[in-house]
Amino acid sequence: MTVTLGEVVAALEGRYAPALAEDWDAVGLVCGDPDEPVRRVLFAVDPVGAVVDEVVETGADLLVTHHPLLLTPVHGVPADDPKGRLVHRLIRAGAGLFVAHTNADRAPATGVNDALAGVLGLIDPRPVLPAASDPRVGLGRVGRLAEPMSLRGFAERVAAALPVTAGGVRAAGDPDRRVATVAVCGGSGGSLLPAAAAAGADVLLTSDLKHHPVSEALEVPGPALVDVAHFASEWPWLPVAADLLARDLGNRVEVAVSTRRTDPWTAHVAQPGTGGSAGRLSG
Amino acid sequence: MTVTLGEVVAALEGRYAPALAEDWDAVGLVCGDPDEPVRRVLFAVDPVGAVVDEVVETGADLLVTHHPLLLTPVHGVPADDPKGRLVHRLIRAGAGLFVAHTNADRAPATGVNDALAGVLGLIDPRPVLPAASDPRVGLGRVGRLAEPMSLRGFAERVAAALPVTAGGVRAAGDPDRRVATVAVCGGSGGSLLPAAAAAGADVLLTSDLKHHPVSEALEVPGPALVDVAHFASEWPWLPVAADLLARDLGNRVEVAVSTRRTDPWTAHVAQPGTGGSAGRLSG
Amino acid sequence: MTVTLGEVVAALEGRYAPALAEDWDAVGLVCGDPDEPVRRVLFAVDPVGAVVDEVVETGADLLVTHHPLLLTPVHGVPADDPKGRLVHRLIRAGAGLFVAHTNADRAPATGVNDALAGVLGLIDPRPVLPAASDPRVGLGRVGRLAEPMSLRGFAERVAAALPVTAGGVRAAGDPDRRVATVAVCGGSGGSLLPAAAAAGADVLLTSDLKHHPVSEALEVPGPALVDVAHFASEWPWLPVAADLLARDLGNRVEVAVSTRRTDPWTAHVAQPGTGGSAGRLSG
Amino acid sequence: MTVTLGEVVAALEGRYAPALAEDWDAVGLVCGDPDEPVRRVLFAVDPVGAVVDEVVETGADLLVTHHPLLLTPVHGVPADDPKGRLVHRLIRAGAGLFVAHTNADRAPATGVNDALAGVLGLIDPRPVLPAASDPRVGLGRVGRLAEPMSLRGFAERVAAALPVTAGGVRAAGDPDRRVATVAVCGGSGGSLLPAAAAAGADVLLTSDLKHHPVSEALEVPGPALVDVAHFASEWPWLPVAADLLARDLGNRVEVAVSTRRTDPWTAHVAQPGTGGSAGRLSG
Amino acid sequence: MTVTLGEVVAALEGRYAPALAEDWDAVGLVCGDPDEPVRRVLFAVDPVGAVVDEVVETGADLLVTHHPLLLTPVHGVPADDPKGRLVHRLIRAGAGLFVAHTNADRAPATGVNDALAGVLGLIDPRPVLPAASDPRVGLGRVGRLAEPMSLRGFAERVAAALPVTAGGVRAAGDPDRRVATVAVCGGSGGSLLPAAAAAGADVLLTSDLKHHPVSEALEVPGPALVDVAHFASEWPWLPVAADLLARDLGNRVEVAVSTRRTDPWTAHVAQPGTGGSAGRLSG
Amino acid sequence: MTVTLGEVVAALEGRYAPALAEDWDAVGLVCGDPDEPVRRVLFAVDPVGAVVDEVVETGADLLVTHHPLLLTPVHGVPADDPKGRLVHRLIRAGAGLFVAHTNADRAPATGVNDALAGVLGLIDPRPVLPAASDPRVGLGRVGRLAEPMSLRGFAERVAAALPVTAGGVRAAGDPDRRVATVAVCGGSGGSLLPAAAAAGADVLLTSDLKHHPVSEALEVPGPALVDVAHFASEWPWLPVAADLLARDLGNRVEVAVSTRRTDPWTAHVAQPGTGGSAGRLSG
Repeated sequence: MTVTLGEVVAALEGRYAPALAEDWDAVGLVCGDPDEPVRRVLFAVDPVGAVVDEVVETGADLLVTHHPLLLTPVHGVPADDPKGRLVHRLIRAGAGLFVAHTNADRAPATGVNDALAGVLGLIDPRPVLPAASDPRVGLGRVGRLAEPMSLRGFAERVAAALPVTAGGVRAAGDPDRRVATVAVCGGSGGSLLPAAAAAGADVLLTSDLKHHPVSEALEVPGPALVDVAHFASEWPWLPVAADLLARDLGNRVEVAVSTRRTDPWTAHVAQPGTGGSAGRLSG
Repeated sequence: MTVTLGEVVAALEGRYAPALAEDWDAVGLVCGDPDEPVRRVLFAVDPVGAVVDEVVETGADLLVTHHPLLLTPVHGVPADDPKGRLVHRLIRAGAGLFVAHTNADRAPATGVNDALAGVLGLIDPRPVLPAASDPRVGLGRVGRLAEPMSLRGFAERVAAALPVTAGGVRAAGDPDRRVATVAVCGGSGGSLLPAAAAAGADVLLTSDLKHHPVSEALEVPGPALVDVAHFASEWPWLPVAADLLARDLGNRVEVAVSTRRTDPWTAHVAQPGTGGSAGRLSG
Repeated sequence: MTVTLGEVVAALEGRYAPALAEDWDAVGLVCGDPDEPVRRVLFAVDPVGAVVDEVVETGADLLVTHHPLLLTPVHGVPADDPKGRLVHRLIRAGAGLFVAHTNADRAPATGVNDALAGVLGLIDPRPVLPAASDPRVGLGRVGRLAEPMSLRGFAERVAAALPVTAGGVRAAGDPDRRVATVAVCGGSGGSLLPAAAAAGADVLLTSDLKHHPVSEALEVPGPALVDVAHFASEWPWLPVAADLLARDLGNRVEVAVSTRRTDPWTAHVAQPGTGGSAGRLSG
Repeated sequence: MTVTLGEVVAALEGRYAPALAEDWDAVGLVCGDPDEPVRRVLFAVDPVGAVVDEVVETGADLLVTHHPLLLTPVHGVPADDPKGRLVHRLIRAGAGLFVAHTNADRAPATGVNDALAGVLGLIDPRPVLPAASDPRVGLGRVGRLAEPMSLRGFAERVAAALPVTAGGVRAAGDPDRRVATVAVCGGSGGSLLPAAAAAGADVLLTSDLKHHPVSEALEVPGPALVDVAHFASEWPWLPVAADLLARDLGNRVEVAVSTRRTDPWTAHVAQPGTGGSAGRLSG
Repeated sequence: MTVTLGEVVAALEGRYAPALAEDWDAVGLVCGDPDEPVRRVLFAVDPVGAVVDEVVETGADLLVTHHPLLLTPVHGVPADDPKGRLVHRLIRAGAGLFVAHTNADRAPATGVNDALAGVLGLIDPRPVLPAASDPRVGLGRVGRLAEPMSLRGFAERVAAALPVTAGGVRAAGDPDRRVATVAVCGGSGGSLLPAAAAAGADVLLTSDLKHHPVSEALEVPGPALVDVAHFASEWPWLPVAADLLARDLGNRVEVAVSTRRTDPWTAHVAQPGTGGSAGRLSG
Repeated sequence: MTVTLGEVVAALEGRYAPALAEDWDAVGLVCGDPDEPVRRVLFAVDPVGAVVDEVVETGADLLVTHHPLLLTPVHGVPADDPKGRLVHRLIRAGAGLFVAHTNADRAPATGVNDALAGVLGLIDPRPVLPAASDPRVGLGRVGRLAEPMSLRGFAERVAAALPVTAGGVRAAGDPDRRVATVAVCGGSGGSLLPAAAAAGADVLLTSDLKHHPVSEALEVPGPALVDVAHFASEWPWLPVAADLLARDLGNRVEVAVSTRRTDPWTAHVAQPGTGGSAGRLSG
């Protein structure tokens, strides 16, 4: 009845095939012995110290994260390196680490982007950049809202649906613009803007947007933009993947979603519309 | 008594030498005839449509921007391309465009980073990455606050000192952390973090910070991070450069700072600390 | 009844599809507004000052040239750069610039190489380097003369058929050699020599031939070579393209071929067969 | 009293040090055995079949050429390759081949460019691109004419001074322009134009000039251009190098300059200023 | 009745098509004139001085070697270079040099690897890395032994079957391991290990094996390794190719296999299992 | 009195500075926590399974190897990868792994090459490739024998002085050649041959020598070659480094040299000088 780490890995890779990952990505097992048993699996966005604390505190045998620990490959994992220290802590605690990153982004039906589309209520979501070989696979999702709304109203819906983060939600474009078709991309998805435009999106929601592409986007017709915390955009996948793993293994493993908020932003100060040295600027 | 565009360019390059620009940058005159007269100069962060409207409306003969119009080089400037259209509008209006970008960032005393350090009240600012040839030249500035304060307090000072933008100010790190030495870098300056740490900074203020470097920074000792709008971080330079040009040319040209807020973010929705599907997350 | 620049561009691209251009090339609209009307179009080989003078003098709304103005891409078009100055002059004169370069070389039936083959009287011309997808498309043309003639006689025919240039026509190979099959390539076509040999050509006519490839060619069996001015080899296309555009647009635009000889060579001194310090050389 | 090939090579390299050659060049001994005796040395511009005929006919033991035989390196020298055949013929005839190319171009006092400057009567010639380490070394030569003359007059002097070739001499620029300072570069020297301009040259004489650089040069102030046969521009060096070798070896070897004209152009047809399909063009 | 070198080359290339060679290889005729007659052909592994001595002593008109003389291409073949000296000696002796290298390795049925498989008695040999286009073509051969034997026993069979060399035969892996399926690759074939493992080989025999790949191979399940002299692994091909050529040309040429052992190792000292400073090491 | 891993690393890097390593190398701490205590250190050439067995069996806290475990960087260390498994075993056993590779090769006085020179009795050894900055540092060592001897005699001395390996010792060159000056390079040092020749060496001893460079070396004057097992050439450093570490730390750590022979070759079959299919070859 015991489940081995090898079986858990097989179940996860059955849903999030490594072959779906981008060439530059680093997915799969980072540490852990496939022959050893797994009783409890913890799901988190980021493999950081606070999450490994939780692995140790809760006695999890496996940590599944969306972000790779060692995206830049290493010649060693010494404990005086922050990432090496996590490897030591996990191995000594008998816990493995498994990463599903761009393969989870691109996977059909149960991936990161489907989960994000789901909490926002998008109807008939399909990939923004569908794979040539399978139209259900690909980066981003684009779908319809049940009811069109203003860009401002959409930003408010996003703020209510996603995990709370210090930075909240930003929008670029006319706040009164009507939004009916929505493209989303968990993580840093600014490069999907041309494809989202081609797919007829009124808005693209993603994270880590920088000044220049957003500024250039507003100079031409095309989708508005909504920026949320990277962490918040990917979090909705955690309960989906956790429940799926439990089900796929006949509930022979216990699953949990991490309770640590690993968005790094801890404080926000709003700037009211008047005062300050920019007071002389018009909108 | 008339000033030619050539003289204005010479005055600007006397303060912001093209040789200071990074290899990949594109600074200097984008359009305009150095032999023609200049009576009025407008300074702005971004060469976008709203700013060219202002050039036309105010009859300026020269637009000086911090950001390049044609950072990616082009084989033509046809008017059905958004950037080509601006070139047509400027040439037909008899106005030139001059860019001072990383040369203005790295210039001594009167550059973008000195202006930013100035509005924040930094004492004895010096480059974070000083040039080997001249220690007054380089990217970023690091200096002391007159009085140490908390990270939260510093973020509030930043919000008060910089132009108002929709996104406001974000901070990463313990909000109660004491901040005495401050590093700043106008624009996208996340790559200066190691140098800011080496310079003893308690915090690095810059813009366009993305999830992964901030998350990794919080896993090791080092500076806290403050993120502001890219536009806001560079705006303080505009009045400095405008006044300097007028003075350098004996007030024979009229100068003005653009009144258009070219930060592309138009709306922000805060997420209060409770409610939402992330309500079960602990901080 | 007015024709817009956009319609003219569409007509030209209907004959000379941009997709036919080489990867390194820079074709299409360089300046001008597709929404503005066009009454008169001037065709020339080179976008140089003398030709832009003619645009201004004749009130043309569009200049079509074979050679790109900005083959090396630029970060600006300031008027103290010779090419930027032409952009200023054209935009201020309300004239556009359109380039059809290697797409015009490779296009079927009405391209640069067909025009060159036509003035030389070649029969059944076909591409020297045909495209895999369409045998009518490709670089160079090879065809038969109505009557075989000597290489010297062919060079005389070339001199009579092409625009007069200071440098005249040069031939390499036995002047008495019989020439029946002729390959031509407008512009710098020396690299087509192996393909011309494979196509059974007795001679390759092109321009800009340099010492080493010609010297090496004479060491092995294969075609003789004839070198003409680059300008002269491409000029025959101008009336062809001009007439075609007028016809394609139902004579709603007026067309003209530039009268300026833009071959840069202005003088030639022949060396008679005796005298000089090389008098002791035998042939 | 016998001289070995090794001694001849040492004498030649004493004047034309291999270290002066460009990185991409291929100079030195191509075939021949340094231990064998040399009685007679033939100098030529090009290692072609006609010159090897002369080696065989005259019983020369060594051929010295300016141009490399194997600039593109080879995996073999089979006799069914034109260059391999020359290697077989030379080795079977007991003759070596030695190349002095860009080292002879750049060498001080007795190199290719000094010889060219000499036959044109230039006063105080110095390198156009002097080496940092030695101002007497470098590509090209620039000097004064004893009397200024028109560009046309200079072209006539060139035609009289250099070996007769079919193509003669071409000039670009105003034929009446006054020429006092002259830059020359044997071989393909068009890339020296900016340096010639910086050196104050009124004209640059070189060979293998192509349309685009000449056309662009005429659009800006700067030197006129004169184009001669590549062969003719380098030939003047042959008697200089031959005499020098004989002297350096105490006349223990017999030297001769090849009598074969290896310029590949065999015929030229002038185009008188009227007639032909370009009759309607104005100058 | 005379056979030309061209006919011999055609016969050899009929068996060992140049198109089969790797991209980086240098095969075919290195020197010799295809129009000259060939009476006697010598086959050897290496084009070295001792073998050229044999060419001269035996009056051979053609040397066929497996290894290229000029794998690194050259700008000349002067006689003071060891390889250039061989070219001079061959050309002066009227002898050609022909190379069949990776094309002979990859050729079907009569190539280097088939000959090696043959002397070892492998049954049903097929390529280890078969070409996509033809399964009989490719690097390496894998086949069965008539009777399984121990790794030690296999090494003894190899020692008996291949030419005697000073270094003998080395094996890596448990000497008592059972060997039934054998992969072989003449020359430096260590990179075929993964393909040999995939083909089910119990052992890979090749040469030039280095410490690190062998050490890593022993850390995982997979084939044992046997290392022989590079020369010995390729020698078995010589009599095969020689006989084949004679037959293909109707015995109109005389063929011979070189009697020179060109393995460079001249002495070997065994280390008995005890004594020396490593005496304290356990196995 | 306890020594931490950090102190041990500092002592090792004091002797074998990481800055001495080649750019492509991967030296330093691979796993282990610098804050934890170290009582016992084991030194070995290779980080392989048998050596980790010994770490576990002997309770060592640190393994120091010459060869890197992760020369090719990795994205993870899962236990189903042979190298990842060793990381798991070491971390779980509380043992670190430290690598000193090309820094130990190049270090002065107490490095790999000095140890090798020492066991062979070389007098006044100095680097074959000395560093520009410090003539005591560099790859290889060259020194004199107390008494000249034959190449065969030298090979016998090598066999007696180095650890016993299955492959023994091979020599290339005339066995009776006199050897007085000896160059050595632990590991794969064939590329040092030109430098060893320039240093006047009569022989170069190293490992992993391949056919082509040895064959080419025998075609020109220069050093003979001796090839030993890679493992054997580096082993002499182990006791040197172990003793030095104990001394540098005041004998506060226990040191040991691994007793496992990690040379991968397990058997050798000599080929007597007659018989076999190569019997017809002459030497």
